[in-house]
Amino acid sequence: MRSQYCGELNSTHIDQEVTLCGWVHRRRDHGGVIFLDLRDRDGIAQVVFDPDTGEHFQRADKVRGEYVVQVKGRVRARPEGTVNPDMPTGEIEVLGKELVILNSAATPPFQLDEHQSVGEDVRLKYRYVDLRRPEMQQKLRFRSRITSAIRSYLDQNGFLDIETPILTRATPEGARDYLVPSRTHANNFFALPQSPQLFKQLLMVSGFDRYYQIAKCFRDEDLRADRQPEFTQIDIETSFMNEEEIMGMTERMISGLFSSLLNVELGSFPRMPYLEAMQRYGSDKPDLRIPLELVDVDDLMQQVDFKVFNGPANDPKGRVAALKVTGGAKLSRKQIDDYTKYISIYGARGLAWIKVNELDKGIEGLQSPIIKFMPVEIVMALMERVGAADGDIVFFGADSAKVVNESLGHLRLKLGEDLDLYTCEWAPLWVVDFPMFEEDGNGGLTSLHHPFTAPSCTPEELAQNPEKALSRAYDMVLNGCELGGGSIRIHDQAMQKTVFKVLGIEDEEAREKFGFLLDALQFGCPPHGGLAFGLDRLVMLMTGAQSIREVIAFPKTQSAACVMTEAPGTVSSAQLRELHIRLRQVEGKAE
Amino acid sequence: MRSQYCGELNSTHIDQEVTLCGWVHRRRDHGGVIFLDLRDRDGIAQVVFDPDTGEHFQRADKVRGEYVVQVKGRVRARPEGTVNPDMPTGEIEVLGKELVILNSAATPPFQLDEHQSVGEDVRLKYRYVDLRRPEMQQKLRFRSRITSAIRSYLDQNGFLDIETPILTRATPEGARDYLVPSRTHANNFFALPQSPQLFKQLLMVSGFDRYYQIAKCFRDEDLRADRQPEFTQIDIETSFMNEEEIMGMTERMISGLFSSLLNVELGSFPRMPYLEAMQRYGSDKPDLRIPLELVDVDDLMQQVDFKVFNGPANDPKGRVAALKVTGGAKLSRKQIDDYTKYISIYGARGLAWIKVNELDKGIEGLQSPIIKFMPVEIVMALMERVGAADGDIVFFGADSAKVVNESLGHLRLKLGEDLDLYTCEWAPLWVVDFPMFEEDGNGGLTSLHHPFTAPSCTPEELAQNPEKALSRAYDMVLNGCELGGGSIRIHDQAMQKTVFKVLGIEDEEAREKFGFLLDALQFGCPPHGGLAFGLDRLVMLMTGAQSIREVIAFPKTQSAACVMTEAPGTVSSAQLRELHIRLRQVEGKAE
Repeated sequence: MRSQYCGELNSTHIDQEVTLCGWVHRRRDHGGVIFLDLRDRDGIAQVVFDPDTGEHFQRADKVRGEYVVQVKGRVRARPEGTVNPDMPTGEIEVLGKELVILNSAATPPFQLDEHQSVGEDVRLKYRYVDLRRPEMQQKLRFRSRITSAIRSYLDQNGFLDIETPILTRATPEGARDYLVPSRTHANNFFALPQSPQLFKQLLMVSGFDRYYQIAKCFRDEDLRADRQPEFTQIDIETSFMNEEEIMGMTERMISGLFSSLLNVELGSFPRMPYLEAMQRYGSDKPDLRIPLELVDVDDLMQQVDFKVFNGPANDPKGRVAALKVTGGAKLSRKQIDDYTKYISIYGARGLAWIKVNELDKGIEGLQSPIIKFMPVEIVMALMERVGAADGDIVFFGADSAKVVNESLGHLRLKLGEDLDLYTCEWAPLWVVDFPMFEEDGNGGLTSLHHPFTAPSCTPEELAQNPEKALSRAYDMVLNGCELGGGSIRIHDQAMQKTVFKVLGIEDEEAREKFGFLLDALQFGCPPHGGLAFGLDRLVMLMTGAQSIREVIAFPKTQSAACVMTEAPGTVSSAQLRELHIRLRQVEGKAE
Repeated sequence: MRSQYCGELNSTHIDQEVTLCGWVHRRRDHGGVIFLDLRDRDGIAQVVFDPDTGEHFQRADKVRGEYVVQVKGRVRARPEGTVNPDMPTGEIEVLGKELVILNSAATPPFQLDEHQSVGEDVRLKYRYVDLRRPEMQQKLRFRSRITSAIRSYLDQNGFLDIETPILTRATPEGARDYLVPSRTHANNFFALPQSPQLFKQLLMVSGFDRYYQIAKCFRDEDLRADRQPEFTQIDIETSFMNEEEIMGMTERMISGLFSSLLNVELGSFPRMPYLEAMQRYGSDKPDLRIPLELVDVDDLMQQVDFKVFNGPANDPKGRVAALKVTGGAKLSRKQIDDYTKYISIYGARGLAWIKVNELDKGIEGLQSPIIKFMPVEIVMALMERVGAADGDIVFFGADSAKVVNESLGHLRLKLGEDLDLYTCEWAPLWVVDFPMFEEDGNGGLTSLHHPFTAPSCTPEELAQNPEKALSRAYDMVLNGCELGGGSIRIHDQAMQKTVFKVLGIEDEEAREKFGFLLDALQFGCPPHGGLAFGLDRLVMLMTGAQSIREVIAFPKTQSAACVMTEAPGTVSSAQLRELHIRLRQVEGKAE
């Protein structure tokens, strides 16, 4: 029905007869002539209908925005002075000869170029209209190009695309599962997978050697800013490869993607141990575009007669750190107050600061509400430690290490954004050497990743000193986002049992939950490992979208609903009976 | 960790040092030397350890079946007389120098080459062992190659891979939905999609023009022989293309697949109207490899004084048909009795037959329990009608058209298989010109496909004579299997309303169920259509598998359960409370 897409046309098509199909983006009547901007997924072309085309002119006169039409005509150069350099097809126009109205359109709920005048709820309700916007078309098209490039890379490297089940059993990630009542097995439930973790490990036990899947995953969590109940993971697992090889192979995949699709060379990704990332950036996913760093000053603060500082400085779980911002002395009191408020979200009870006006005047050249509590030599040692210069500001955090890291870590990101401190556009890195466990808050330990992550020590060392054990896990971080993470897995039964023991998981519980995996470990499990990337986030970063909702065709709202289809919805009592369940009444109604 | 896959080795590698990783497939001790058959996903290589390798020989001596090992050695030609021409690597062997045991293995629940000695339930419970079998490896690998080739074809043809939601609203296919209780919207449920039908149509309304997705679909049906609760669909939709273009494009896709992966040229697919398929083959998915055809004999039987025949022959909903089997006179009475029993599954109350012994002897040359009820001239006219010759058998079906088509249609397939009548290996075709509606058994009409299928007539004609209306639907059939089906969709609101009216769907009900689609039709919906292929079935046909369970990594059993993970399973009452549901007690327990 068409010879070209609208957006494909350019001056090489001049004098060609073309047939276009698309939507009327704009219609103008100018000097007795009808101008139609015709839009399809490739772009917009201008079509001109002169009155001498008779019925076709009449129809062109009649069409309105979002009508679907087919146009036949001849491409010609635009008259001098009407060339539009901002438009890819701006050098040409189509002199229309025939116009067929394929479908009419009621006035849409919002104009495409005025989409910001309506709330996101309206755009989500009429998602099929919102998706017509060229930006949305480009984002989803780019997503398709990303998955295609990833598949092609993995296919070429011998990875097999293998599907794992959606109707399955609870997985070990620990978030809340979506459940599906079984009709044939009364009072039993399937769980939707939080990831294909166990299945991909079983595929390694099966000898598939290299597996990948672009897999839907599900978590029934209260949605924070940028989460979705269902999300998509680029899931990879290999046998007989160590962490270096896996990191190398996936780094080349991501670098290749940026190179081929964005013409960006990411270079070689630096490696940073988890501890260093926490010390220097207060985060396990540091945004290295921002040149600010946390500097430890515990030793200087230990002797200070100021409880806010010397308490955390002398506490083994405490931390006192400084964050110097070059040129930050210009921040107003109001701005500093706002930052103080901002970091209170992360538990900080205040934000101490020193402005450096004239450093060669010594303490007199500094401005700060806290220096009066400290000996001069300590203050000057602090200045030296952070390398302060005139015009800088130095912030301080003093609390538990957790609170200091979170608050100064986030302050660092906020300052980077507010003051536009970015030194580059893209800053990838690998974070490695994670601890195996973290405290679970109840005196026990919990896996930092998941209980199948291999430690970099022997089972005996692990049992003796689990708090110190490091894992063979690795996270790929880009611009402060965790793009992906993975690990070498445990392939040895004794090691797996030791980990369960450290976690306080009884044999019986382990058998009940992961019996099939434990079985599998004893029947010839190869050394293996892998990694999973969050596709939605990757596409968001690469397209510069503000939210993952912009790169998902039909996303859910923050309350995990689809306003377009009105899902979830009610079901009949016959359906419930078949599923052997009944509703529990809520909100004070009788049960 | 490896230099080559085991299966890659051949005589070009002679004298090379190689490192292999894999599973011990077999271990033999022969003349003081240890032979290991080492297996990985690419194949099996023979490794020889001489006693002079010391500790490595000791370890080679110690390993057992399914141990995971790494072997270093040198490739050499096998000594004369020991070359194994049945084995791809049979010309060479590896002289082992080092052996590392990467993991031991308990005795597996069954030996890979004795998998048929255990039931399918055992193989499914230890699926990760069963998947090690070379046939299973090859099937899933072939599946990955199929999806890769399909994606590459569709990418090249400008199709965009767009994901649609899994947590969604009930879809219009009419099978039973899997439901997911919502935690955040009490007493509301998501449905898992039976297909992305509505979403792909909305993507066309959104202007994406060409969409595809290899999509998981879900149906909670009682599982017949070869169904799965979750299955995979190659889902395609396009705008501004008519049925010829869509059929052409997808036919080229499937032909290309057979050509590139199986070296089979399918040729151009014949088109057959639905009615012709039912008349000649008693099926809307005829297996054209079998040269048997149903022949109408109603006119001959109308006057016969034999109620079994003249009843259906005179009933407008009845049918009397003959099926001639060349050379079938050799069938024994026992075999004919078995066929009679077989077609009783499809409602047939008997199976009349005439054996042709010596046709030139007239009625005397025939053998049959029924000819005594019929005039000689009718019998001879029947023989002429079906073109009977000596040695043939002619079967008859007389009942409602439905029963005759189903029973003779299935008899035709059974005879084709039993007597190996196939005239070719692959017989594809398109079935077209389906009726829009069929009787729903309650005096009303129901859609043969789904209510969004466009008819090939105007809304007025449709309303006047819905029983006669044909649709713009098309099914691709291969060897008697429906590989895929699709249609041009309705893009016009008036037409859609007419279809709902014919189906007896009230405006309110239509709005409730498909309101968002009806809305979408009025905001500039382009002409569009598409098609969906069943991937599991396609892979099954192309790999010669006996069941779709063989081409799915982790399939469910016939009772919709996974015996490996023991899904579905029980959940805690806390989880149920969060989901606002409670269990309904079953099997006589108090509720």
